[in-house]
Amino acid sequence: MITQSVLKKISHVVTKGMFGLEKENLRVDKDGKLALTPHPAIFGDKEENQYITTDFSESQVEMITPPLPSIEEVCSFIRTLHDVVSDEIGDELLWPQSLPPRLPSEDQIPIAKYKDASKELEEYRKSIAEVYGKYRQMICGIHFNISLDDEWFTALQKELDNSISIGDLKEEVYLKITRGLMRYRWLLIWMFSETPLAEPNFKVRSLQDDEERFLRCKASIALRSGPLGYRNRDNYIMDFYSIEGYNHIIEELVSEGKLHYAKELYLPIRMKFLDKDQGKPSYLEVRFLDLDPLSPSGVNEEALYATYMLFLYALLCEEEGEFNEKEQLDATLRQDLAACYGRCADTSFPEEIAKGAKITDEAGAVIQKMKHILSEHGVLQNPIYAATLDRMEQLAKDPAKRQGILLYQQCKEQGFIEYHPTLDKIEELAYDPACCKDTIVHEQYKAQGFIDFHLNLAKAYKREAELKGYRFWGYEKLEMSTQLLMRAALCKGVGIEILDPSENFLRLSKGENKQFVVQATKTAIDNYATVLAMENKVVTKKLLAEQHIMVPAGGEYFTKHNALKDFSRYQNRAIVVKPKSTNFGIGITILKENEELSNYNKALDIAFEHDNCVLIEDFIDGREFRIFVIDDEVVGILHRVPANVEGDGIHTVRELVEKKNQDPRRGKGYRTPLEKIALGKEEELFLELQDMSFETVVAKGEKLYLRENSNISTGGDSIDFTDDVDDSYKEIAVQAAQAVGARITGVDMMIQNIKDAASNTNYAIIEINFNPAIHIHCFPYQGKNRRLNFKVLTALGF
Amino acid sequence: MITQSVLKKISHVVTKGMFGLEKENLRVDKDGKLALTPHPAIFGDKEENQYITTDFSESQVEMITPPLPSIEEVCSFIRTLHDVVSDEIGDELLWPQSLPPRLPSEDQIPIAKYKDASKELEEYRKSIAEVYGKYRQMICGIHFNISLDDEWFTALQKELDNSISIGDLKEEVYLKITRGLMRYRWLLIWMFSETPLAEPNFKVRSLQDDEERFLRCKASIALRSGPLGYRNRDNYIMDFYSIEGYNHIIEELVSEGKLHYAKELYLPIRMKFLDKDQGKPSYLEVRFLDLDPLSPSGVNEEALYATYMLFLYALLCEEEGEFNEKEQLDATLRQDLAACYGRCADTSFPEEIAKGAKITDEAGAVIQKMKHILSEHGVLQNPIYAATLDRMEQLAKDPAKRQGILLYQQCKEQGFIEYHPTLDKIEELAYDPACCKDTIVHEQYKAQGFIDFHLNLAKAYKREAELKGYRFWGYEKLEMSTQLLMRAALCKGVGIEILDPSENFLRLSKGENKQFVVQATKTAIDNYATVLAMENKVVTKKLLAEQHIMVPAGGEYFTKHNALKDFSRYQNRAIVVKPKSTNFGIGITILKENEELSNYNKALDIAFEHDNCVLIEDFIDGREFRIFVIDDEVVGILHRVPANVEGDGIHTVRELVEKKNQDPRRGKGYRTPLEKIALGKEEELFLELQDMSFETVVAKGEKLYLRENSNISTGGDSIDFTDDVDDSYKEIAVQAAQAVGARITGVDMMIQNIKDAASNTNYAIIEINFNPAIHIHCFPYQGKNRRLNFKVLTALGF
Repeated sequence: MITQSVLKKISHVVTKGMFGLEKENLRVDKDGKLALTPHPAIFGDKEENQYITTDFSESQVEMITPPLPSIEEVCSFIRTLHDVVSDEIGDELLWPQSLPPRLPSEDQIPIAKYKDASKELEEYRKSIAEVYGKYRQMICGIHFNISLDDEWFTALQKELDNSISIGDLKEEVYLKITRGLMRYRWLLIWMFSETPLAEPNFKVRSLQDDEERFLRCKASIALRSGPLGYRNRDNYIMDFYSIEGYNHIIEELVSEGKLHYAKELYLPIRMKFLDKDQGKPSYLEVRFLDLDPLSPSGVNEEALYATYMLFLYALLCEEEGEFNEKEQLDATLRQDLAACYGRCADTSFPEEIAKGAKITDEAGAVIQKMKHILSEHGVLQNPIYAATLDRMEQLAKDPAKRQGILLYQQCKEQGFIEYHPTLDKIEELAYDPACCKDTIVHEQYKAQGFIDFHLNLAKAYKREAELKGYRFWGYEKLEMSTQLLMRAALCKGVGIEILDPSENFLRLSKGENKQFVVQATKTAIDNYATVLAMENKVVTKKLLAEQHIMVPAGGEYFTKHNALKDFSRYQNRAIVVKPKSTNFGIGITILKENEELSNYNKALDIAFEHDNCVLIEDFIDGREFRIFVIDDEVVGILHRVPANVEGDGIHTVRELVEKKNQDPRRGKGYRTPLEKIALGKEEELFLELQDMSFETVVAKGEKLYLRENSNISTGGDSIDFTDDVDDSYKEIAVQAAQAVGARITGVDMMIQNIKDAASNTNYAIIEINFNPAIHIHCFPYQGKNRRLNFKVLTALGF
Repeated sequence: MITQSVLKKISHVVTKGMFGLEKENLRVDKDGKLALTPHPAIFGDKEENQYITTDFSESQVEMITPPLPSIEEVCSFIRTLHDVVSDEIGDELLWPQSLPPRLPSEDQIPIAKYKDASKELEEYRKSIAEVYGKYRQMICGIHFNISLDDEWFTALQKELDNSISIGDLKEEVYLKITRGLMRYRWLLIWMFSETPLAEPNFKVRSLQDDEERFLRCKASIALRSGPLGYRNRDNYIMDFYSIEGYNHIIEELVSEGKLHYAKELYLPIRMKFLDKDQGKPSYLEVRFLDLDPLSPSGVNEEALYATYMLFLYALLCEEEGEFNEKEQLDATLRQDLAACYGRCADTSFPEEIAKGAKITDEAGAVIQKMKHILSEHGVLQNPIYAATLDRMEQLAKDPAKRQGILLYQQCKEQGFIEYHPTLDKIEELAYDPACCKDTIVHEQYKAQGFIDFHLNLAKAYKREAELKGYRFWGYEKLEMSTQLLMRAALCKGVGIEILDPSENFLRLSKGENKQFVVQATKTAIDNYATVLAMENKVVTKKLLAEQHIMVPAGGEYFTKHNALKDFSRYQNRAIVVKPKSTNFGIGITILKENEELSNYNKALDIAFEHDNCVLIEDFIDGREFRIFVIDDEVVGILHRVPANVEGDGIHTVRELVEKKNQDPRRGKGYRTPLEKIALGKEEELFLELQDMSFETVVAKGEKLYLRENSNISTGGDSIDFTDDVDDSYKEIAVQAAQAVGARITGVDMMIQNIKDAASNTNYAIIEINFNPAIHIHCFPYQGKNRRLNFKVLTALGF
């Protein structure tokens, strides 16, 4: 027996679980009309993309998160999915409301297309279009999946002396939770629904008499969950006490022709079965949550936490009697009441199901019980969960604060009230509470208001998604390049696992292809020896020189003493002093011709701080370009301008740097497209060489450089030159990649004049990088997005 | 005109050049009889092995160095080649003398076998066997190749105002050097030859009358260079003033049937032509140097330096008249005289060619001229070259110190003089100096002495080669594993280039296959992402656990604070505290159950010194084994015993460590098979945990460990277990390699009992190494050589 005392013993793992979201949005054009274009090709085969696919309609994008260990993560993930889709659908927009925009005639609504081998998916959609009408199928929503951790089941089994199998426990536990969620679902629907009003012309076929009817319902807050919403024709009574009985009923419904498909049973809570659990439930799917037009991701995070709290309450509570036919019918009645009269402040339940109590009082009572039980089991030790209960309590007391009410008000504020001449009969409810009768009859809709309001939100969200097109929400600590690669993976439906976030270590997979990727460009398609050849500047230079590719002459030093001895050799040449193994330009100093010995000495000190071997090389005149090569093709060329400030005759270098660093695109550690400019030793030395310091005031209009090296990682600016550089340099970059055997590489080349063809005297390759950043080519300071994240995925075989 | 003054202007680059050696040795059995076995299969196809092949006979191994920039390097290289061959021919030995051991009848001497496509090589050998007799072809020697650097030719061309092409300069210069070397070769033959006596029964066919004759020649020091030695039937007069004329004479000799092949012209100095020089000479081949039985490598380094000095003298001197027919014949006469009477202290030249001067005086005079010219051109600023001239001067004054004389004496000292009844007619010389007549007539040979003397040397060298079987001479600074890989490359004829010695960065190549190899096991057959997965212990554990391979449970910490918070979690378990990314066991501490917080604290300090992320893991009971996997096959299993000393009741830990470290196999930085034991912080902590210090006296017979970790790199002992561990662990190691995708890897596994099959509780993998050392499996403290160097080459496709 799973008693309260048994449950309490294992409460330390009860909040471990997995969470997932599925969310639909209709694509619309810039005027808010349903987009009739095909599902965008960038998302690939809709059956093979685990993240982005279609639901009923070709115009109905479905976004699916993987199971994740927290609600926080699942919310971030769905936001990124939403942003990525928003970003990749061109001029189209994602409609942020569960209830549709103005639709074309029903026959013009495109059912999702499938390839020949999967025509049964199209057949299913045709069948439900037939039964429920296409318009109804255009109503979108959120499915929230929740599971308990196997560790909890194992602990439970142990507490029960291993007398019951894990499978049987799953059956017992998930059935109990389902009963509880079915019983109390009215509370969540009343509290969090966001479908108070539909587009005035939107009609659906009545499930009672098959007549076309405007989707309106008294003082509704949840049209989607109301009698005209997304549901089956009948209120089928289920067996919620055994999986066998439950399945039996479904089989009967199908065999009796009441359902054409088992999956056509639209229960508000569905048990889901994965192969691994062999016929026992694996997780629950909560299906009544609406899109939240007031959040950029379309998901109301509060609603998810509240749902999860009710899920845990349903698990942990002592049940109040059997969930029999009457209780099931009553629960549906409560849902319809909450849905249709939810906006009305003093809605009461009918005498026979809740002694006529006001819905707010009933809500408050349930929340008190939840608080009690969840607190007893330690759940509310988590401040987020405690806050969720407090918030629910507050909403029960002050229901005007509900998101659905706010949405309704804002939507109405959008413009004038337009009288609709054919205000028609509202759908009959089993119970019609007197309290609301007068208040709702004259409710009127403002057509343009509904469309404009949601369209403006869609446009604002799209702009924001574009601006933050580099961001993978929830993974802000990963490097920019890695976040971008993950975004591309979402698009192409390539599975993402983060094996070690601290090292940006991913495993990407699709079908048979599994690839480790570290820092976006350290991959399995480059071999280790090639990487070591690139890492070793001496070897790199030998290999390039063998192929008659120009490299700067110079020497290699293991002691400062030896390097000092050679000062005279370098004195009359412009040189670069750098640690043998470094990326990112760290420890590099450039000295002009006829430099003082003391500066040479200082440069050596800096370089030897970073490596026990230092290279001194000719400084090659010209501008430096990063030429990104993937599989013998140049995919991006970037010129990097060293960290710089522009003077105003008033502010010091230090002040100008601080100001420039306030640009939100500038961050630290590759988590934004550009890096903040540092005020360190090397910048100091570089200014010293120009007789300046951080406290110097820079003349108006003067562009002052703070470093000679132009890496973005040391505060440089990035400018795209992919289409501007003579092809001869591109060929040389490809040859250089081939010389070391690299498939993904960034060639750093000095070029005197990008319009002149390469000769033996006008360019030199100074480095070949085995871990080139991709974000700088995707979000340059100036220029086009070269979409290297997608190109890396292609190179990896995705 | 190439004048003295022109030459002086470019003397700073005159000693830049390349050097190469080709050396033959006969294979003999343990009794000193010619081995009649085929050329060993380990050396592969003799036509495709650029280092180890056969010369005339199947039993005659030829070793070839690549061109190298110094004589020192070329001597080290040939020694390694000699050692490698010696090591790989089983019980057979390399005969250290140019003159052969006791041979079977001539028809039994096997001519080198070639595959069908190259039968012309066998035909050539049959032809020369016919003309010169197989016995003569069994005389071995050294060819020393010398070239001047292209930089010198470029400088020369510049000094001559670019009026002459580099090709024409090469022709002029190499012809001049050839003339000089031909003219003065008698000096080197007299000074450095080491063929004073042959095996008493060794006969060769006289080139004058075709009769079989014992190879003896008066007071000979150079039987190989004497009239019965290795030469053509006639003394062909060449044109040493133009390549055209030179080639024309060769063509005539062939067309007249005097030679069957152009390459049959056995000049003492040969010009060699590489394709790149388009018909102009590329380098010179000096052909008269004998094997040096008194050096392990068979090469007398002094003789090479002296030859090079004469080469430079011939280049830089003003020539003394034309090198015409008379001069050419005189030069041969001098050679024969030096060869046949070289042991006689007061040999004089005949009146007509050197005014009857004593050969020692003539030698002295030439050396003075060399000193003068070489000094004028700055060559003698190099102390080795100066010492060479001094040494030559000394040998001219005290000719008994010559290597050939020492050899002769030692050979005679080997036993009694045996009278040979058929002391036969000596070969006629054009000139027969009276001075030696009486002293040489009664010279007698002790057959057994000649054989035993050389056989004993061969055996001693073979033993030494075996003992130092890990060494690649001249590259002692490279890691042991790299030296071993290079030795295997020599065996298989895989070309070796050292791209960066400081990083053990090689390029190996054979035919189309080119491979970068770093530290012997960082290669192109492993991809970069796999290496990163192995390097990252968190990722490694995830990937192994996915495959149901046992790994120790634990946690990952980025701050000491967090790790300290979890002390209670670990307090009652034996744990390992280690930096997240480290090889070589650096920074690792093992703590027993119920350890003090202060020791936990200290262990964290040590680990955080090496990485900003520290892992704490269960300490797995059992012994640790390194399982080396190449391409899904276990190729070696090693148990490593932590650094330890055995007590004697008298000495302290410190003293015992110092003593154990005196073992010559123990070195530092992977340049020997074992590493010295350190007395550092970690050893100190480990002893502290046992209430001991470095000053503790260890009880007699007690084995005291200084570390818990058993890496060889921290002084551990290596014991081969390849054949002793249950197969189940080998299968798991292969699965682990597959889980990370590695082709070359070292799996570190804790095993409780190697005879029990693996279960979920009796083993765990603690690490997978992407750069496992190979030398520990080749030269373990105890056990078999598993030849991983050869296996790595095979995996690389060689």
